Formats: sequence, structure tokens, C-alpha cells
Amino acid sequence: MSADSPPLRTEQPPFTGRTTKEWQAADAAHFLHPFTDHQALATKGVRVITRGEGVYVWDSDGQRILDAMSGLWCVNVGYGQEALIEAATQQMRTLPYYNAFFQTTTPAATALAERLAARTPAQFRHVFFCGSGSEANDTVIRLVRRYWDVMGQAQRKVIVSRLNAYHGSTMAAASLGGMAAMHAQGDLPIPGIVHIDQPHYWAHREGAAKDLGREEFGLLAAHWLEEKILAIGADKVAAFIGEPVQGAGGVIVPPSTYWPEIQRICDRHGILLVSDEVVCGFGRTGRWWGCEAFGSKPDLITFAKGVTSGYVPLGGVMVGERMARVLIEQGGEFEHGYTYSGHPVACAVGLANLDVIERQDLVTRVREDTGPYLAQQLAQLMEHPMVGEVQSCGLMAAVQLCRNVPLREAFAPEIAIGMVCRKHCFDNGLVMRAVGDRMIVAPPLVITRAQIDEMFGLVRQALDRTHAEAHAAGWLAR
Amino acid sequence: MSADSPPLRTEQPPFTGRTTKEWQAADAAHFLHPFTDHQALATKGVRVITRGEGVYVWDSDGQRILDAMSGLWCVNVGYGQEALIEAATQQMRTLPYYNAFFQTTTPAATALAERLAARTPAQFRHVFFCGSGSEANDTVIRLVRRYWDVMGQAQRKVIVSRLNAYHGSTMAAASLGGMAAMHAQGDLPIPGIVHIDQPHYWAHREGAAKDLGREEFGLLAAHWLEEKILAIGADKVAAFIGEPVQGAGGVIVPPSTYWPEIQRICDRHGILLVSDEVVCGFGRTGRWWGCEAFGSKPDLITFAKGVTSGYVPLGGVMVGERMARVLIEQGGEFEHGYTYSGHPVACAVGLANLDVIERQDLVTRVREDTGPYLAQQLAQLMEHPMVGEVQSCGLMAAVQLCRNVPLREAFAPEIAIGMVCRKHCFDNGLVMRAVGDRMIVAPPLVITRAQIDEMFGLVRQALDRTHAEAHAAGWLAR
Repeated sequence: MSADSPPLRTEQPPFTGRTTKEWQAADAAHFLHPFTDHQALATKGVRVITRGEGVYVWDSDGQRILDAMSGLWCVNVGYGQEALIEAATQQMRTLPYYNAFFQTTTPAATALAERLAARTPAQFRHVFFCGSGSEANDTVIRLVRRYWDVMGQAQRKVIVSRLNAYHGSTMAAASLGGMAAMHAQGDLPIPGIVHIDQPHYWAHREGAAKDLGREEFGLLAAHWLEEKILAIGADKVAAFIGEPVQGAGGVIVPPSTYWPEIQRICDRHGILLVSDEVVCGFGRTGRWWGCEAFGSKPDLITFAKGVTSGYVPLGGVMVGERMARVLIEQGGEFEHGYTYSGHPVACAVGLANLDVIERQDLVTRVREDTGPYLAQQLAQLMEHPMVGEVQSCGLMAAVQLCRNVPLREAFAPEIAIGMVCRKHCFDNGLVMRAVGDRMIVAPPLVITRAQIDEMFGLVRQALDRTHAEAHAAGWLAR
Repeated sequence: MSADSPPLRTEQPPFTGRTTKEWQAADAAHFLHPFTDHQALATKGVRVITRGEGVYVWDSDGQRILDAMSGLWCVNVGYGQEALIEAATQQMRTLPYYNAFFQTTTPAATALAERLAARTPAQFRHVFFCGSGSEANDTVIRLVRRYWDVMGQAQRKVIVSRLNAYHGSTMAAASLGGMAAMHAQGDLPIPGIVHIDQPHYWAHREGAAKDLGREEFGLLAAHWLEEKILAIGADKVAAFIGEPVQGAGGVIVPPSTYWPEIQRICDRHGILLVSDEVVCGFGRTGRWWGCEAFGSKPDLITFAKGVTSGYVPLGGVMVGERMARVLIEQGGEFEHGYTYSGHPVACAVGLANLDVIERQDLVTRVREDTGPYLAQQLAQLMEHPMVGEVQSCGLMAAVQLCRNVPLREAFAPEIAIGMVCRKHCFDNGLVMRAVGDRMIVAPPLVITRAQIDEMFGLVRQALDRTHAEAHAAGWLAR
């Protein structure tokens, strides 16, 4: 029995005692990775990321990699920020954990709640803490249905979301999301969640957007929401949820007409609006919040990732006063919460992270300097023979690959051109993510112009190598 | 707009700059607590926990409190363990975050996966990491359904759980749980989850258990599972999930006959068995795992809390080889995961936490020393005029309050005698939790005999004061 086994080899950071091959063998034997074909990964061997500094990470073979995905959209202040480390250490030393269930709080949780209330749009004064973006979006369903229940409109249950949205991976969060592959494996979505199509100009180029300008298409896409509301019956719809810019869906920057029209439609039918800011929040778009960048006034904001720059897991839901007043004054006990709701170490790191963002004025820098500079660099790629569309917003951007630019023809799906390109990136010291045939970046907000130049050079090189491979393999249009 | 606001007052741990009243005002204005009536809490004023050391925490008024609930069943190695703090600090300095999605890992995640495989029963070699117990139990549904799908038995979808079980608070985890108040607010359970009654001898004392001994009742309660399976159709049932000892349900220690019979029933019908070890795992019962203490051989183990002693959020699912081999070899990509799956800081803390448990031999100490000592102390309470039942298992225990011991009569629910008792505990420097009329404890595993004496003295005092109040108020049987 396990209780009688001898103590195992003790290992501690920085874990320098094993070779890459040893880590790969241990990993294949024991670690079931998220969103991974375990057998394929075991055959190939995992890459072991061992340290980070600024916008760079290093692997166990000593290769330096420019992390153009901020870990996974989260390390916004970059690796090695001493202020966050110091805050975590001091909080752990003082009080590493206490719960918020027993009519109790900790200073860190209360201070972060207050700070978030001040840093979010004016309609927000309250926060419900969770441990992740998944838990935050999952919580949205509970909050929204509870609100309508207390309001005497319990029949308002349906939440409208979008195809190709990503809202997390719990059963309910994945249901809110519109990822077909996830739905196929989990008997999802759960009841009461429906989807409309996304405001993705490129994807609709041969269909709904065919004869429309981008802004006209934005209005059309917003009206899909109204059509769905009318089909369901407006009095049965509880809320609409969307990411200001779809992140995991491929950095889909909507036309500027889209969100204001969505807001008008929600207002017209008295429907709550939820802005999933897990990716867009904390400066990614060049505003503190994506809803500020795109002109909506949500009732709920969900956040995670950037709130702590990923140093310690934390997520949450900002609850607008329209809902908060009802839930507080008439709701009684809200029967929901997590052990780590308001975790003091996570909240202390969140406070230090906000200090860094504010002191370095990172949001303004993204909006006025590095964001426009990245956009300007990437715009050059429109001359590349394999690039059909470039979109960017603040420090997130997408490059759409296609086999024939004038005809805007896609590569055959079995080629998986995005994965081909991603391999060239990795081999060349750049983390860039592939979403289908769309290559995306979202570097740390601390990235400098010089580092953007370096990143752009690596992106261009990866595209050129991908193009050469596609040419040699005969994948391109003749 | 928020982007133009001036930086706010910077606060850092240990947050000594405000008075209790100031914290209470900020908390009431901004923090929506889990499982709380927000208005009632705001009226009363929250208690602010500011520091911890060993088994004690202190509030902002300087009161020392013996934390007999280990935070919330999690601070198993106690507050202020330098090894965990050092591991977190070093890992943050080296690499505060990296994902496990991009065919990548970190040494901390892989090392903890390996370590858990060695510390769990022999059927386990693989782990899927999550951020919490809720996410872990939510993941169970995905894993179980995917397994049966790959096995060509996609019709096996139903998961059987129990009333008064607690498996977390996402929509799916709360559905697995059997808490009526949670179900009432969220349109839960989601489809495909059904519940049988719990093996709670005291609760069934006037019903199913009336003429049965404890062990006979255990067999009867297990057979409720078989009745449910036969009613649904065995070929439609995917899995059964249960906590070895129900935690949040009130430390319901099942009769020793229960789990072996559950195992036989699952085996007979080819149904997967899931042991939720979020509370019981990592030594709480005096074994590493509750399933070892109670004699089941689960296919999945979910864990959280004790894996890091709560210092940094972490959860996960141990996947038995019967399932893992199928998912790895035939499953292809598993379309599920979390940003913080395998978070390196959480995993580094997990490794250090296991070091502490092993070096101090805490599991043996609970099994052979402090657990039996606590049981012996608590047994004295059976002579108390208001105690109907005492149960304990390792370092978790329950004291059932009743108004008339010989007749085993319950207090009127509107008295909420548990909350009355809890208030006496808190006022007296003891955190004890009330679950209905059942008072429960689960102190840190590092608690000493002397501290158990202190805790027991405080428990007895709280019971005496509650009894005096009940007597004065006329709540007791005449």
C-alpha cells in the first residue's frame, strides 16, 4: 500500500537533475496533457520549458524561445516580475490560505475586490471570485438564472452564445463555447444554451459577407442575435455572452459596427450582456477592457489569466450594479462558490500585477505605441503570397493563411497548414499558435519595439519556410 | 474611463494599514462571498483573517483562533510551512507559468504527475491536472463519457451519485453533488446524473435504518445503488461517484460494509467507480486515500485541497490504467483542459507538500496516534445531554446535536442549532463548522495531542454554552 512506500526522490525548482529524455519518459508515463493526443505526444516527446525571463522562455535543451502567446494569453507582465513574486512570498508567509465562506475574508481578497471595482467600467462595483476563466463563465449561468428568478422571470433561462467562441472547459463553460470538437466528446451543450454564427468576415467571405463591406457585415452578424431572440421568444432569453475579440477562435476582430449593434439588440429585448474578458481584459486590446475598446456596456464581465499574469490561478466575475443590487437585496444566500474563491495568495499577486500594469502604464503603451507598431509591421504581410487577411487589436493579431491570395482559396484541411507553420515557428525559436489556418500572436504587454521587430522577423521567416514547403509539396495554387 | 484614472493606493501583504471597520466597509461594498447572504453579512460585518501559524489563525482584532477546519479542509500541513513557501518562490523566480497545451510541459508538472502516480493505489499511473476539485469532478464526466464512447458503448451516459454529496460548484460538479439548495438555484442537475440516498445512519434512524445495526444498514444503503442501476438499465450507466466519507455533507462516516458492497455492485454491472478524494485524500483518514481506508478500488480519483495544502490552487484526476490505456491508445485528442492544468507553481508546491507529509510521516501519525486520540476524546461527548452521535475517521469528526438524546429527537429546524453552536465556537476562538445540526472538525494533520486537548476543551465549552442557551430558550425536550 502506498502509505508504506519509502519517500521518493525529492525534487525542487529549478529541477536541473534530469535530461530532456528523462523528462520526456516521465511525462509520457504519467501526465495526461490538456487538449492533446496523448499517444502522438508520447511518440514524439514533449518539449520541456524550464525557465522564463521577460518575453522569453527556455527549454531543457537550452533553446531560447520568444513567447508570442504570453504562456497562454496570460503572462501579460512577462516572466520574472519580482513584484509579483515578492507579493506571493509575503502573502504565503503571512497567510497562505483562508476561505471566504465562514463570514470571513482576508485583506488581500477584499483589497483586490475594491481595486477591481475601481478599474472596471462605472457600472461595476462588485466581484465574485473564482479560480479560472472556466469557473467564471460557469458561474455566469448561475448568476444570470438566479437574477431572473429573483426578478420573477424564471422563464428567462436561455443563454445565447456564438459558434467558434471559447468560454472554457467545464461542462457548462464548454457549452457556452462554440467549439464543435469539444461538444462532440461531452454530450454538449447542456440544455438552455444556443449559438449563433460569429462575426468572422474571412470565414463568411464566400457566404454571408460576399457582397458586403466589413462594417455592413458587422451589422448583419449582430442581427443574427435578434433573429435568434425572436425565434426563441424574447421573454425566454436570459443573456448573450461573447468575447469582445474571439481569442482561441483565432483572434477574430469584429467589425466596429458589431458590438454597438449587439448592445442595442440586448437593450431592446431587456437581455443581459456578458463580456468574456478572460483574454481581452487587463490591457490586451489597448484598453483595460475589450468592452471599452468595442463600445458595449455589459452587465457581467468574466476575467482570469491577465488578472495575475498567470503567476497564480485566479478568475472571477464582475457583477454590474443592475444585477448586484437585486442579488444582494432580494437574493438571500447565493448557493455557489469555490474553496479558492478569493484565495489570498492569488489576490495578493493580482494586486501586485495591477501595480505593475499601472506603474509601467502598459495599457496606454499598448494603445498608443506597441499595438499600432505591431499592426504596422504585420500589415506588410499582406504582400506575402500566402496571407489572405491580417487582423490586429492592441497586442493580439491573426494572420490568415491561404493557398491562393487573389481567389482567397483555403488550403485542403488535411494539409493542416497551420500546424506546418507552427512547427517552423517552434523550430525557429518562436511560439505562435495555429487555429486552423490562422496563425495568431498575443505577446506579453511588456514587449518592446525591438522585440516586436525580432518577433516579426521570426514570423516572416516561418511564413517563408512554410511557403517554400507548400510550394515543394505542390499545395499551392498553380 | 478607467484607463485614465490615477493609480490607486498600493497595498501589499501583510496589509496592516486599515482598521477592521475599514476592511468591513470595503468588503461589504465590493466582495460577493461564496455561499453567503450578502446583505446579512454586510449588516453584521465580515471577520477579517490576517495571519496564520501552525493550526492557528488570527483576525484583525488580534483574536487567536484554533482552526479546526484546516481553512476549508485543505491546510493539511498547517500555516507557515517554509518548505512550501520556498518552493513557490523558487518556481516563480524560475518559471511562474507555462502551459501544457503546446506539446509542452514544465519539470514541476511532470515531476508531480510521476510522484502522484507513485503515491496512489497501484491501478493509477496517470493524472489529468485541473485547478480545483470542482474542475476535477467536472472533468470526470468528460473522461467517463469519452471512455465509454471509445469503447463502443456510447449509450452508457448516466452517472449515479448520492443525495447530500458534495462534488463542487460548477454546473456539472454541483449536479453530481446532491445539495438541494444548490440544485434549486441553477436548474440542476444537468441531464444524465441521478442520485440515490446516502449511507447516513443517523439521518435514517427513524426510517430505513430503524431496526438495523450499522453494518446491516451499510449493505442496505449500498443496494440502493443496485436498485437504481437496474431501474435505469445497467447498460446505460457509466459510473458511480462518491466521497469515501462525505465531507461537506457533515462528515458522514459510512458503515464498514458499505464501500466493499458498492465495489461488488459496480464490478457486477461493469460500471466505473469514482472516488472523490478532494477532502479525504492526502492522509485525512489516516491512509493516503479514503478508498484505501474503506476498501474500494476506484477507476478514477479526484483530488484538490490537500495536494498543496491550499497554498496555491490545484486539483486533478488520477486515471486508472483500465481507462487510461483506452484513452491514450484509441482516444486520439482529448478535447478538454484548462489554462492552469499543470500550473508549475502549484505543482512545485504540491511536491514540497508531499515532502512535508512524508518526512513528518503525517499519515501514519494520523492513523496510529492523533486520529485515535481525537476519537477517544470525542467519545466522551456521548455523555453530553445534547449529543446524539459522534463519528470520526482519522482527523475528521462529527458531533450530532439533538434536543432529546434518549428519543433521538431533532431540534426544530428554525432554531438552526448548528449556527447557534458555531457562534459560540467562533466567539470562543475555535473554527468549527455547522452542517445543519451536525458540528464538524477536520484540523490540520500537524495538530499535536496537546492541541487536540485544547480543541476538545473549546468544543466542549461551545456545546455547554449552546446547551445553556437552548435550555434558557426552552428549545430542549422537557
